[in-house]
Amino acid sequence: MKNYSIAKSRRLRSTPYTSRIENQGVTAYTVYNHMLLPAAFGSIEQSCDHLKKKVQVWDVSAERQVEISGKDSAKLVQLMTCRDLSKSKIGRCYYCPIIDNDGNLINDPVILKLSEDRWWISIADSDVIFFAKGLAIGNNFKVSITEPTVDIIAVQGPKSFDLMNKIFGEKILELKFFGFDYFDFNGVKHLIARSGWSKQGGFEIYVENTKSGQILYDYLFEAGKEFDVKAGCPNLIERIESGLLSYGNDFDNNDNPFECGFEKYVNLDSDINFLGKEKLKQIKADGIKRKLMGVKVDMEEISLTKSLDITDDKGNSIGELRSACYSPHFEKVIGIAMINQPYCKASAIGKLEINNNSFTVNICDLPFI
Amino acid sequence: MKNYSIAKSRRLRSTPYTSRIENQGVTAYTVYNHMLLPAAFGSIEQSCDHLKKKVQVWDVSAERQVEISGKDSAKLVQLMTCRDLSKSKIGRCYYCPIIDNDGNLINDPVILKLSEDRWWISIADSDVIFFAKGLAIGNNFKVSITEPTVDIIAVQGPKSFDLMNKIFGEKILELKFFGFDYFDFNGVKHLIARSGWSKQGGFEIYVENTKSGQILYDYLFEAGKEFDVKAGCPNLIERIESGLLSYGNDFDNNDNPFECGFEKYVNLDSDINFLGKEKLKQIKADGIKRKLMGVKVDMEEISLTKSLDITDDKGNSIGELRSACYSPHFEKVIGIAMINQPYCKASAIGKLEINNNSFTVNICDLPFI
Repeated sequence: MKNYSIAKSRRLRSTPYTSRIENQGVTAYTVYNHMLLPAAFGSIEQSCDHLKKKVQVWDVSAERQVEISGKDSAKLVQLMTCRDLSKSKIGRCYYCPIIDNDGNLINDPVILKLSEDRWWISIADSDVIFFAKGLAIGNNFKVSITEPTVDIIAVQGPKSFDLMNKIFGEKILELKFFGFDYFDFNGVKHLIARSGWSKQGGFEIYVENTKSGQILYDYLFEAGKEFDVKAGCPNLIERIESGLLSYGNDFDNNDNPFECGFEKYVNLDSDINFLGKEKLKQIKADGIKRKLMGVKVDMEEISLTKSLDITDDKGNSIGELRSACYSPHFEKVIGIAMINQPYCKASAIGKLEINNNSFTVNICDLPFI
Repeated sequence: MKNYSIAKSRRLRSTPYTSRIENQGVTAYTVYNHMLLPAAFGSIEQSCDHLKKKVQVWDVSAERQVEISGKDSAKLVQLMTCRDLSKSKIGRCYYCPIIDNDGNLINDPVILKLSEDRWWISIADSDVIFFAKGLAIGNNFKVSITEPTVDIIAVQGPKSFDLMNKIFGEKILELKFFGFDYFDFNGVKHLIARSGWSKQGGFEIYVENTKSGQILYDYLFEAGKEFDVKAGCPNLIERIESGLLSYGNDFDNNDNPFECGFEKYVNLDSDINFLGKEKLKQIKADGIKRKLMGVKVDMEEISLTKSLDITDDKGNSIGELRSACYSPHFEKVIGIAMINQPYCKASAIGKLEINNNSFTVNICDLPFI
């Protein structure tokens, strides 16, 4: 596939670490929340292999925070998500589908409860801040809604525990999955969560003090030498193998949470108030007509730049492929597809036409690994 | 400057014309409204020169539409903008700052009044759809809010009038600036406005029938041969020379409309209801503390990827440069900067440090030409 340059400008915001990752050999960017997100440091196959065995440091500043604080903040946050947050705890992260009045998805952030009246919504790629502002204005909520200066460094991979232990001490190993706490680095406190956009284990450092964050970024590489640390980024292969969904790629504002396998985050039985609740009850009662599924295709490479139609053997559409990559682990192409009933079951078969070649599509459950 | 690839995916949506512009030699993309927007076909200097003399066809599908229809649509549209739309007419486009409750900017779209209860907001790069949804839900407005399938082809440059006349007939020349009407192409009606993101004159074709639009795209090049038509895109040099502001580059959600020179679109004296009205009255009464200005710098090239500090001769910040390019017309670098009082006047002087070199910055009024 031909490569095209990204035309940089202030509108595609740089991060505090951009000059560092460019020195470290970033080769491709994507844009995420109007910000540069590294997408490759050379081969994503090699980087995937390294991520699974060692430790990587990622500039994921593009995971922006929407801070909601004030008297009505809990009410507003709950209004936006179908997940019941009534028993949520300070110091915990919650994966929460954000839903509109039609029961469709607007984002799938991780929400951090900083205090009873202060929350961070760590967003995927859409302007949740403007949805929150619109809702707050319309409902006359007493809240403050801002995008604070928070630029996340992710430390991912099996050796991330050793590296973080070395820098922050043993206490960091006590963090439970999706727990967070504050840890000291050279006299500056950093919020660190045990989380991250891979299934290889790791941490996310929510950097508010930019200068300290830059020193920490450099120090992670110095201290990480013994663990073979490398600069990296969210890895297409690893995230598809792990079934980590991506808003805008695998689902968008035309899809509902049941179609995306988010059932366990849809709490229809409690008496909490959230948008789209009646719609979602109706959708659940009617049953969904399509669902996100895995697919495996005997191909040696693929470069997906838009949805590709999946058909039955008569050429009728049975769904669309939305993300795909070659997986060295499976030695074939794997992908995530929105598949129509009655084909959304493991063992169903479809067809894909690429450059006038026809390929058999084996539908399977998610995640792959 | 080193080039970085753009990592394509479904999340950075392709357009109906993407394969065409790639055959025509697009070399760089930016991302705008989660969609690919071409940013260069080789040299932007040569393309700027051609745009000023001939005619270009642009894939500006990334200018997405937010359609607001229904009983309360006029009320919602007016709520979002400080421009008085009470006397707006069907068949006209209106440049409208979108404002939040703090009096700050969320977008600067062109709004098309399709009928009394149906509007298109032709947006710059932010998710206005979610702001509109939040406001509609919170206010319990009776409206439908969607992103319709509309992919704009822009035809820009002095020869655009000859080309469009050749294809659509003389009636298209009767369109007034920012007027729109429906015109036939091979039996399909297309909404065409006399508008576009250059000051060289031209039209925007709001394509709803994708197939017809693709045929029309190709035909524009066939019929345009005699006018030396070329594929192009919004041109950084031309838009800075013309003082066409860009949301995300020159201003964002931290700036108010008075700071951006939008006074004539801020109608505080009428009795219409819009967000931020009281805040804007206060800002106006207090007077602004900074303003977007032009700058000229004796340099031969620049590549701006983020704001650059402009200082006085003692090194104190007096503003920041937000967009810049080398202008062959002025034979120097020109740019758009947010400048603090008392420096925001033509003839003020500042300094810019780039790679340890110091350059004199001459502040001037906008537009340059």
